[in-house]
Amino acid sequence: MPKYQGGLDRMFHALGDASRRAMVERLTRGPASVSELARPFDMALPTVVQHLGVLEAAGIVASSKVGRVRTYQLNADALSPAAEWIGRQRLPAERRLDRLAAFLDPPTNKETT
Amino acid sequence: MPKYQGGLDRMFHALGDASRRAMVERLTRGPASVSELARPFDMALPTVVQHLGVLEAAGIVASSKVGRVRTYQLNADALSPAAEWIGRQRLPAERRLDRLAAFLDPPTNKETT
Repeated sequence: MPKYQGGLDRMFHALGDASRRAMVERLTRGPASVSELARPFDMALPTVVQHLGVLEAAGIVASSKVGRVRTYQLNADALSPAAEWIGRQRLPAERRLDRLAAFLDPPTNKETT
Repeated sequence: MPKYQGGLDRMFHALGDASRRAMVERLTRGPASVSELARPFDMALPTVVQHLGVLEAAGIVASSKVGRVRTYQLNADALSPAAEWIGRQRLPAERRLDRLAAFLDPPTNKETT
């Protein structure tokens, strides 16, 4: 877990922005240049590059430069730690559903701390 | 999707902090009071309350107050939109793996833009 702490911070932070998520969604359809990625946005290129930098620092995308064209691609497995972390929280929560229901709507219990 | 945009921003932002994630992990084991949640942290209570407020605004946890004790519980389904969003990105990415491999290590192609 400690291995991923900083990584998960960066990853969830990177995903906490609708524009960056839209760039990730675009990249699931294949690699794209900065200008292709900028197209759907009313956004200056440097802002797009900044967003891509956040995604790259989080390990979600990678880039390579050929001549003057920098192309970005999705790191296919990069979101796994985030997906796995969320998965770990949902599973026990589901197991506890009965207990939660009892907590929210206690049968005839007196108060529980 | 637009329905979730603000929600996903808030949710991923809330998860982008190791202390908040640790609080969520604790809450998967059942509801807890602020002081119980604070225990593992070297953190002032108001800071803990602030973190819990971020999680509550994101819809990840809910709280209820009995007397002077405020108790927090995990919203079991709250993380679903985040899990689903990540799932949507990974699936097409996996389908594109061959294409990515070809992109990263082209056979004998000339350049593709």
